[in-house]
Amino acid sequence: MLTKNRLEAFSDGVFAIVITLLVIEIHAPEVDADKSLAAALWHEWPSYVGYFVSFLVIGVMWLNHHRIFEQVVVVDGPLLLLNLNLLLWTVLIPFPTSVVAEYFREGGAHATTAMALYGGLILLTALSFVALYSWITHDDRLVGALPPRAVVRRARIRFSFGIVVYAAAFALSWLSPTAALIGHAAMALYYAFDQASMSERST
Amino acid sequence: MLTKNRLEAFSDGVFAIVITLLVIEIHAPEVDADKSLAAALWHEWPSYVGYFVSFLVIGVMWLNHHRIFEQVVVVDGPLLLLNLNLLLWTVLIPFPTSVVAEYFREGGAHATTAMALYGGLILLTALSFVALYSWITHDDRLVGALPPRAVVRRARIRFSFGIVVYAAAFALSWLSPTAALIGHAAMALYYAFDQASMSERST
Amino acid sequence: MLTKNRLEAFSDGVFAIVITLLVIEIHAPEVDADKSLAAALWHEWPSYVGYFVSFLVIGVMWLNHHRIFEQVVVVDGPLLLLNLNLLLWTVLIPFPTSVVAEYFREGGAHATTAMALYGGLILLTALSFVALYSWITHDDRLVGALPPRAVVRRARIRFSFGIVVYAAAFALSWLSPTAALIGHAAMALYYAFDQASMSERST
Amino acid sequence: MLTKNRLEAFSDGVFAIVITLLVIEIHAPEVDADKSLAAALWHEWPSYVGYFVSFLVIGVMWLNHHRIFEQVVVVDGPLLLLNLNLLLWTVLIPFPTSVVAEYFREGGAHATTAMALYGGLILLTALSFVALYSWITHDDRLVGALPPRAVVRRARIRFSFGIVVYAAAFALSWLSPTAALIGHAAMALYYAFDQASMSERST
Repeated sequence: MLTKNRLEAFSDGVFAIVITLLVIEIHAPEVDADKSLAAALWHEWPSYVGYFVSFLVIGVMWLNHHRIFEQVVVVDGPLLLLNLNLLLWTVLIPFPTSVVAEYFREGGAHATTAMALYGGLILLTALSFVALYSWITHDDRLVGALPPRAVVRRARIRFSFGIVVYAAAFALSWLSPTAALIGHAAMALYYAFDQASMSERST
Repeated sequence: MLTKNRLEAFSDGVFAIVITLLVIEIHAPEVDADKSLAAALWHEWPSYVGYFVSFLVIGVMWLNHHRIFEQVVVVDGPLLLLNLNLLLWTVLIPFPTSVVAEYFREGGAHATTAMALYGGLILLTALSFVALYSWITHDDRLVGALPPRAVVRRARIRFSFGIVVYAAAFALSWLSPTAALIGHAAMALYYAFDQASMSERST
Repeated sequence: MLTKNRLEAFSDGVFAIVITLLVIEIHAPEVDADKSLAAALWHEWPSYVGYFVSFLVIGVMWLNHHRIFEQVVVVDGPLLLLNLNLLLWTVLIPFPTSVVAEYFREGGAHATTAMALYGGLILLTALSFVALYSWITHDDRLVGALPPRAVVRRARIRFSFGIVVYAAAFALSWLSPTAALIGHAAMALYYAFDQASMSERST
Repeated sequence: MLTKNRLEAFSDGVFAIVITLLVIEIHAPEVDADKSLAAALWHEWPSYVGYFVSFLVIGVMWLNHHRIFEQVVVVDGPLLLLNLNLLLWTVLIPFPTSVVAEYFREGGAHATTAMALYGGLILLTALSFVALYSWITHDDRLVGALPPRAVVRRARIRFSFGIVVYAAAFALSWLSPTAALIGHAAMALYYAFDQASMSERST
């Protein structure tokens, strides 16, 4: 009943808005009387790292969303729910980003909790994405013709690899919040370049 | 004069924006010196419940909006006004959501007022939706051909059922704010799965 | 070079976003220890009136924007600039709305200034709209064929009437901020119903 | 794989949202007991100048984005990354705008830092734009047919001129923040009128 185009347009709108809303979590800093504005701005570096990582995560999510929806021909009920479920978690991303921005710098338990919240949400988002992809490719009903079995298998391996790494980054929060943050940044960069090269190969 | 496509695109944009704006009402919590960030985050649970319920409410509203507009052929003046009226209340949803997030936990009269405000707005939104649907289906003028009388009757019964339940949830705020909140969450989940199964049936 | 469709889509996006952003200027109120949340919510009534009026103003602006652009065939440089100029003032609307929300209640000079700021911006927005309309209809270059002279004249009279009333509401801010606010609400309602009946007539 | 239309639609959405989000950095001022609201509003003038300049910068960026994408036929990996890179910096613009709004007035080192941050981001955005344009026009692969060599050369000179002026405005922050701010406003106005006249010429 709901066409694929409308579903894509709505999802695209949500992705575009949430990626842009990330900026409103970066606030003009307050400056103590004897400090410089430059120092106060440097002090906010976790805000910038968080912005950068979350921007790439959402940007890559948008690219992946397109990639899997271009095969879709029919929109059924579970697809609707699984897509709404993916958006539910994706829209939340600015929230843990702002928690990381505020509490990472304090170190200790605060940094651990902040990174665990961030890593946990990213993990949930990735799982929601895999659930959506699995439903779409579980038989021929939603796609005109299933892509070659090898392509589906390769994509599933690629996504499972993501789940494993995100789970590892989540667990790392308790050992070293800094390592977890670096892990997320590395993953975001890796996926961005991987996506780009996939486009390269397919043109 | 204004085409249906433009009206749909504008409404879709508003739905996508308001569903995404819900996240900016969830703030990074302030942590007392002797407390943990984890405890402060748990403490904010009404924010998460509110986000979840309002996300589903708006998501389902968007689905219903599409469902009824796909029959529309002609956009007339009252339709324009009734649609603007629906958007007027829908766009407000983040406001009572943030009031619930802030005052539900305090219990007593504060929780009652917060839930009554929330339930009252959801009720107004549902009434606006029914008014829009009633206008569209009151004769053959706006739709190419009225759907079978039985379909329209069934849809009206379904929507009236919603009005009754929302009115009950609104009234429940004075008896038990917690029960009212659970009622809203249950309704949101019910409608989400109901929508999904309707799509199922119609494909 | 830039097609009319792109210009419309961009403008539509901006209208949809700014109309939705109005909600984030309505904040969950702070409640004094001995007061009720209900009283605190009533106390915020200028926020609601401001939301209502600004919502209608932007909604009607969007309708009018469509109405005049559907005649446009060619997008030239001045049209681009005049459209950007209209958006520049329209996007600002949430700002004076929040000033009214915060200072109207205090009465005296504060209420006068708040209403003058609000009325001034609405007046500038209306003037920008008239400038855009005048450019589009000043000869046959941008529109396939100019609408009948009588139609253009009638539209210009209608818009000039708006300018006069908005100028009057602006001036009223110094005599009676309350009267000015009522004037704006009345104008918004009048235009909304007027638009609706115009659609009626043209279908 | 990702079509040019989707990439344009997503970018358009981001531009429309970020240009509209500028308004939420303009806050209703707090008024001291013995001051007038009018004085408090005047006091916020750097907010208005910042809004005006950033609005034009993003508006012109959107126009330029369209201009260069209308030649594009194929979207490859580097193009995806370079476009995402452009959006990454563009979305940030409200942040330094709010820093300028808050600290320009204080003068001294604070004003210098605020303007350097603003000018630095605009410079990075302009460099990202040039990188995107250079990639698109570096051979015939992405565009159906390269525009005449003279046109490409002229565009590159125009963009390089922009880089030089933005670099000069950035450097000016240390000599005179006021001159730097005026420089940015002048550039924004110049580009807006230049764009308009280019449209004029090409219709």
